[in-house]
Amino acid sequence: MSILAKYAARARQVNSLVCVGLDSHLDWLPTIFRQHPTPQFAFNRQIIDATHPYVSAYKPNIAFYEARGAQGWHELKLTLDYLRAAYPDIVTIGDAKRADIGSTNDAYIRALFDDLGFDAVTLHPYLGREALQPFLNRADKACIILCRTSNPGAGEFQDLLVAGKPLWQVVAERVAQTWNEHKNCMLVVGATYPQEMAQIRQAVGDDMTFLVPGIGAQGGDVAQVIPAGINTRGLGLIINSARGILLADQPAPAAQTLRDSINHYRGGTL
Amino acid sequence: MSILAKYAARARQVNSLVCVGLDSHLDWLPTIFRQHPTPQFAFNRQIIDATHPYVSAYKPNIAFYEARGAQGWHELKLTLDYLRAAYPDIVTIGDAKRADIGSTNDAYIRALFDDLGFDAVTLHPYLGREALQPFLNRADKACIILCRTSNPGAGEFQDLLVAGKPLWQVVAERVAQTWNEHKNCMLVVGATYPQEMAQIRQAVGDDMTFLVPGIGAQGGDVAQVIPAGINTRGLGLIINSARGILLADQPAPAAQTLRDSINHYRGGTL
Repeated sequence: MSILAKYAARARQVNSLVCVGLDSHLDWLPTIFRQHPTPQFAFNRQIIDATHPYVSAYKPNIAFYEARGAQGWHELKLTLDYLRAAYPDIVTIGDAKRADIGSTNDAYIRALFDDLGFDAVTLHPYLGREALQPFLNRADKACIILCRTSNPGAGEFQDLLVAGKPLWQVVAERVAQTWNEHKNCMLVVGATYPQEMAQIRQAVGDDMTFLVPGIGAQGGDVAQVIPAGINTRGLGLIINSARGILLADQPAPAAQTLRDSINHYRGGTL
Repeated sequence: MSILAKYAARARQVNSLVCVGLDSHLDWLPTIFRQHPTPQFAFNRQIIDATHPYVSAYKPNIAFYEARGAQGWHELKLTLDYLRAAYPDIVTIGDAKRADIGSTNDAYIRALFDDLGFDAVTLHPYLGREALQPFLNRADKACIILCRTSNPGAGEFQDLLVAGKPLWQVVAERVAQTWNEHKNCMLVVGATYPQEMAQIRQAVGDDMTFLVPGIGAQGGDVAQVIPAGINTRGLGLIINSARGILLADQPAPAAQTLRDSINHYRGGTL
């Protein structure tokens, strides 16, 4: 089963397009976890056990684990091992934002797909398809290419016009039309740019899934994002929330509320 | 002392623009190292001890350490700790090719600059200056922005014309003119594109240093690269070689030969 099919099956099973961003910054953790020998893993396990009934994907941002060196990397692996064992139907996304020349990407693939075992990773487009081919060749995994990022200054390069089209649209069309030979590509489209999201949906059609960061703390709004990005089957979006769920007094109701809010604005049925 | 000044001082001291890429892929290591409890560190230490008289910078590509998970990360840290203690005058470059939104970059900064202690890191430009500001604010470190990468398919996006200029030139000019407030920016310009390198030198002037991958195994040629990229002070380049030195029967003479070959083609004096 492809990762896209795995996501669609899970989304139908729990009626949810929610992804929880496991951005478990040590400084954010409650004191009780900071005293634990594996604080990030202990925190993640509690979040996962509480929220999984409402969740179709988990997305650790690797930066927050690297910030703790070898110990953080170890706890990231514990988290992935736990997810795979306890909730194998849930998609795991490594928010790594990698991309190097081809032979170096082989090493990142070993780290992210084979050692940690992520189902999908996020990738920078700047080096082009040829460099990313080792990732793209993994039909058993998914490649999520940065297209329109959620940060306020995303437009500095992404808005530059190339033959009348913004660069983000060129990236979206390239990925959809020529990189997606194995039907394993997705795009990162920030929740903070619903207008561009609607244009990208129009440009790439129904069969491209968007990973959507930027809901909540960054200012993205479900009411605008869902109509802009949803496809005609009521799918095509992976809506990420990190701080809004991790730092909630009660993470499970926070995840459920986000799921229900998305479903409220969602056309189509699962 | 800025990292650029540190590099210039070291380059003058050993009359060398050579950077050794510590891309110490476990599969490439001689058997004797693979049996060592810390194989990548043991190999790196031997390479460093042999080559340092001819070297101004060392550049581990982080992918080859992440491929071994927490153990690889640990050995990367041992390598950096050793370099700092034994050869503090030599510049250390983390070839990490990172870039995320600003708050996440803070975590990467903690990992790369503060925990591992790299002098400089490589960064993707796609998210723009605003996202990279936490890196750019570190006047005590250097930020090396991908401009023209060395891979054969680099042109897919980098050659796109924006108001008549290729994207790589737009990136070069932006970095030189508006990102470089703290005089801590450099550019990645691949050895495999000497013509573009000459155009970038013309566009950004003498005060921008290029990190140049792609000599040797990837096909870049010192005879073309040095005239294309050197500045009027005989500086402005950090010439990286990885496999050509790591896999040489005798790494020290290989590093010396590269240094001398660069100096043969170099105008100006140090």
